[in-house]
Order: sequence, then C-alpha cells, then structure tokens
Amino acid sequence: MHILVIGAAGMIGRKLTAALRKNGSIRGKEISKVTLVDVVEPPAVGFANEVRQAIDVSAPGVSEKLVAGRPDVIFHLAAIVSGEAEADFDKGYRINLDGMRFLLEAIRQEGLRQGPYLPRLVFTSSIAVFGAPFPEAIGDEFFHTPLTSYGTQKAIDELLLADYSRKGFVDGVGIRLPTIVIRPGKPNAAASGFFSNILREPLSGKEAVLPVSKDVRHWFASPRAAIGFLLHAAEIDTQKLGWRRSLSAPGLSATVGEEIEALRRVAGDKAVALIRDVPDPTIIRIVDGWARNFDARRALSLGFKADRDFDEIIRIHVEEELGGKIGG
Amino acid sequence: MHILVIGAAGMIGRKLTAALRKNGSIRGKEISKVTLVDVVEPPAVGFANEVRQAIDVSAPGVSEKLVAGRPDVIFHLAAIVSGEAEADFDKGYRINLDGMRFLLEAIRQEGLRQGPYLPRLVFTSSIAVFGAPFPEAIGDEFFHTPLTSYGTQKAIDELLLADYSRKGFVDGVGIRLPTIVIRPGKPNAAASGFFSNILREPLSGKEAVLPVSKDVRHWFASPRAAIGFLLHAAEIDTQKLGWRRSLSAPGLSATVGEEIEALRRVAGDKAVALIRDVPDPTIIRIVDGWARNFDARRALSLGFKADRDFDEIIRIHVEEELGGKIGG
Repeated sequence: MHILVIGAAGMIGRKLTAALRKNGSIRGKEISKVTLVDVVEPPAVGFANEVRQAIDVSAPGVSEKLVAGRPDVIFHLAAIVSGEAEADFDKGYRINLDGMRFLLEAIRQEGLRQGPYLPRLVFTSSIAVFGAPFPEAIGDEFFHTPLTSYGTQKAIDELLLADYSRKGFVDGVGIRLPTIVIRPGKPNAAASGFFSNILREPLSGKEAVLPVSKDVRHWFASPRAAIGFLLHAAEIDTQKLGWRRSLSAPGLSATVGEEIEALRRVAGDKAVALIRDVPDPTIIRIVDGWARNFDARRALSLGFKADRDFDEIIRIHVEEELGGKIGG
Repeated sequence: MHILVIGAAGMIGRKLTAALRKNGSIRGKEISKVTLVDVVEPPAVGFANEVRQAIDVSAPGVSEKLVAGRPDVIFHLAAIVSGEAEADFDKGYRINLDGMRFLLEAIRQEGLRQGPYLPRLVFTSSIAVFGAPFPEAIGDEFFHTPLTSYGTQKAIDELLLADYSRKGFVDGVGIRLPTIVIRPGKPNAAASGFFSNILREPLSGKEAVLPVSKDVRHWFASPRAAIGFLLHAAEIDTQKLGWRRSLSAPGLSATVGEEIEALRRVAGDKAVALIRDVPDPTIIRIVDGWARNFDARRALSLGFKADRDFDEIIRIHVEEELGGKIGG
C-alpha cells in the first residue's frame, strides 16, 4: 500500500505517521511506500520507502504530481486554522477550499486519463461546520451554518467530497474531529487553548490560566483517539456510509469542572492548585458560540471509538508526552 | 436604483424584468438603470436606460465589469440546470460554482478597491440542496445532503453567500425556489416536466402524458409567486435573517391528483380527459427521490407569499400565457 499524508508535519500528521509506521500495514496489507508532504518538510518517520517534501497544496500542478504516484490511501489533514482563516480571508479560501478542490480534481483527472483509480481519501473536517443556535446534542443530520470562514470552507469541502464520491471519482470519508486535548507543546493563543493548558501545564508543575467558568461544556478527543478515527476511516466499508460521506467523530462531552476533577484524580490537589481563574470576556464570548455536545451514534455504530473518560485522556498525555512522569 | 439581472433571458429572468419594468421602482426608489445579461442577449424590456449583453459568468474578468457599474441590487439567476450539471460535471461546476464565486469575489474586490459597496444580492438556490431520506416536511434546519452535482453546487453557493454576507462583503439572500408550474412553452424532456405538461397541454386542447402515479406529492409555485419571492428578497430587512441567509420559499404542497382536480374545476372534464396515463419507470424512480413537502414557516414569517391553491396556479397561466382563453 502506498500512503500519502498531506499535512504530515502537524501534530495530528506526526502522530498519524508514527502510528502507520508502528502498525506497518493498513487494510490488511503491508505499507510499501509513504509520501509525506506539508508546507514545511515533514520529519523522517523511518519507512524504508519514504518520500518527504515541502509543498503548497494550493499551487497549480502540485496535486497532480502527488496523485500521479497513485497512492492507495490519502490522508488530507492540511488546513489553515480557524483564527488565521478568519483574519486572512484569501489565504483561508486558497488553502482550505481550493486545496481540497485541486486534490479532488487531480484524483478525478488521474482516473480519467490513466485508467480506473479510486483511492480512499480521508479528510479532516471540523465541528466548526455547525453554528449556533444548537440543539442539546448535535446529530449528524443537524444543518451546517458555520459562523466562521474556516467552518464554511470545511462544510464546502464535505459537499465536494460527497459529490466526487457519489460520482465514483474518489472513495471519500470526512471526519469532524472534536477539540483535541491534551495538545502537546507550549500554551498557544488559540481561543480553545485553555482546554489543554489547564491540564498540560499543571501536569508539568507549571501554572495555567482558566479564562472561563467551570461549567463550560465542550467536546473532546485525545490525540490517540483522533488517530484512531483517521485509521478507522481509512479501513471502513464506505458502502455503509451511503452518500453521507462525512460524520462527527465520537468525542467525550465534558465540562471544564470535570476536566479539573479528572486532573485531581490523576495528579492530585497540588496540580489542581496550579490553575488560576482569570476570566477573559473575549474568550468567554467566543466559547459561548461553540458546540457543547454531539450525538455521535452514527460514528459509534460504524465502529469509531471514543476515549473512555477524561482520566484516560490525561493518562494518554502522561504516557505519550511525559514518559509516564507527572510533576515536571 | 441600478439593477443587474444575471440570467435575464430565462423564463424567470424575463418575467422578473417585466415585473421590474411594470413596477418602475424597487425598495421605494425609482429604477434608473437596468443591466440585463445572460449567455444569449436578453430581449428588450423597454427601460429608458437599459443595457443588454451576452456574457459568460465563468469567464475571467466578466463579473468585475458587471460590478464596476455598482448595481444596487443584483439578481443572480444564471445556472446550468440539474440534468445538464449531472451530465457535464465540469460545466456544472464552472457555471454554478465558479460563476457564483467570481461574482462574490468581484463584489468584494470592488468594495476593497473603490470604497464601501454593499449591494443586495438575490440568489436563486434550489430545493435540490436537500437529499433523501427526508422528514415528513423539510424545515429550514434540515441538513444539506444533495444527491446531484447541481444540488451540491447550490448548497456550496449558499455557504459562500452566507460567509461573504457575514464578513460584510455583500448583503445576500438565497431563495430555494419550489418547482415552477405551469412552465410556459413546449413540453420538455426534464424529469419534472410532466407536472406542467399535464396542465399546460390540456389547457390548449392538446394531449399530455402522465408518467407517475396520481398520489405523487411535490412542492410548487407559479411563475408569478416565484417573481414575488425574488422581489421580496430584494426588499426585506436582512437583519431579520441573521447569518442564515438562505431559505426555502413557501410553495404549495400538492399531489398530482390534486393538480388534476384543480384542472377539472378550472377547465372541465374535457381537459382532464386529455391526460393519458403512461407509467415511465425511469421517471417514477427519479421522482421518488424528490422532496415532497416543506415547512416554510421562516419564509412566511418574513412576509414571503405562497400561491393560494392550485386553481390559482392554473388561472395565472391562463391569464399570463393564454390571454384568458382555455381550450386552444
């Protein structure tokens, strides 16, 4: 199997390629080649046959070249994130919309010109396709009224993925990822950053700031669960999806207070004491417009697996990022 | 007021421009100029200041030129129809998606380069944005899973219209038109053609073929009601729409049997006797996948007006197309 990962240098991309390396196979067949691309050259993973390259998905001809190697499975993870897509309208549409369309069109043209070609395309969509006001739990049949350009671009990508799949040009699966916690690395300025910060920093003995109330509810998955969603999406029988090719992955719905109690159970009161309440009206307002809970029964019935509880989410971070050691 | 109509040569375009001419004003202001464009040069309407032109909305630079005249209200009706968009994948995306995106981008760039510009853009979307399986009545919050490329393109256009409106680049309203009956002209090969054929032909003393069962239910509007939707969309206070800029216009839900009984009331048993039952398995299968009924309470609450009943739909045709005379 030849695997192409677009966006291989990002957090999800690196963890996905590491998992592919560890598994060594996909859909029951040995991985014989990987092509890893991103806006910067992705790090080496250690496959015998491994091509790594810095590319721009929105540049003419780039997708054609990637697809000319006829990868069997393509993971398309590359995106301009929400805040940047909102600030730079042109760049967001260029990368998040044109990039996807160029890729789909390159796959279609490869098939039209060189004979039958129907790769599995796993695309990371986002819960940002949904916009307030929300029902109590958002089902897969709730309509898409994104309130950001990023969400608009992802919703359009889902529509394109479904139409190209329906026409038999690609075998697509779109996965709306929950918010990933605990994101490794340093605290960042993203409005959602605190969901990770208040766990990651205390786990390393550092202070963290909580800008919202403890009763804020949100939708989470560990990086490990997210990689599981993507690998499962590469393997499932897409006949079972019908023409509804995108779905909300099963996350864990939890309040900030529940996050903190899980931290207490895993790392003790000393860790919890490192969280300082510093209400931030801007972040409070932004978070207020976010989805809180989902009904992911469709994904669950298709075999996608959520994290068991928040304790597990924290333990995964301790294991993967801290070498099992709490407290810095 | 300067009005631009893109797609002015089509059935809806011609009736819309005739109504604009008759009214002479829009949003309480005199219409001082109209620009009428289509893939063929639209017919003259008789405005003192009237520009008519054959254009291709998907050609580079065309939208920029149309928008450089800073029309106050733009009606974008141009589209490749469902059957053709399904048969010619590239052409459908070029006209129905790129055409809309070029127009939106031209409006945005005009504002960025030449100073504030926020025209009202009325866009004709379609109930084809919805795909089976359906609820009993499809509300404005039912999600979009189009099962045709045409529906996909219209759903994407709605997303773009909403995002460009949210960002303050355009003041957009999208109207999902019901199936228009009675379409004037000759019977055509469209799968939906029979809904009009079985009324229009007998009203002129000619035979018509009914390819489906009389209990088939569908969603209808007269050409006059459709023009009313578009004019109202040009006039409403878009603050009331919030960021949900597209809506399903209020149609009339009726069965084929109810159509026929209305024909009997308006034109008598002799007209009804001209309808021959010739079941067509292909058309039966296509129509089976179509939406039957909608919950248009949102449009109704915003002042959009449906036809009163099917008798009225038939009388409108007799009045507008037959000079009041039934029987050919």
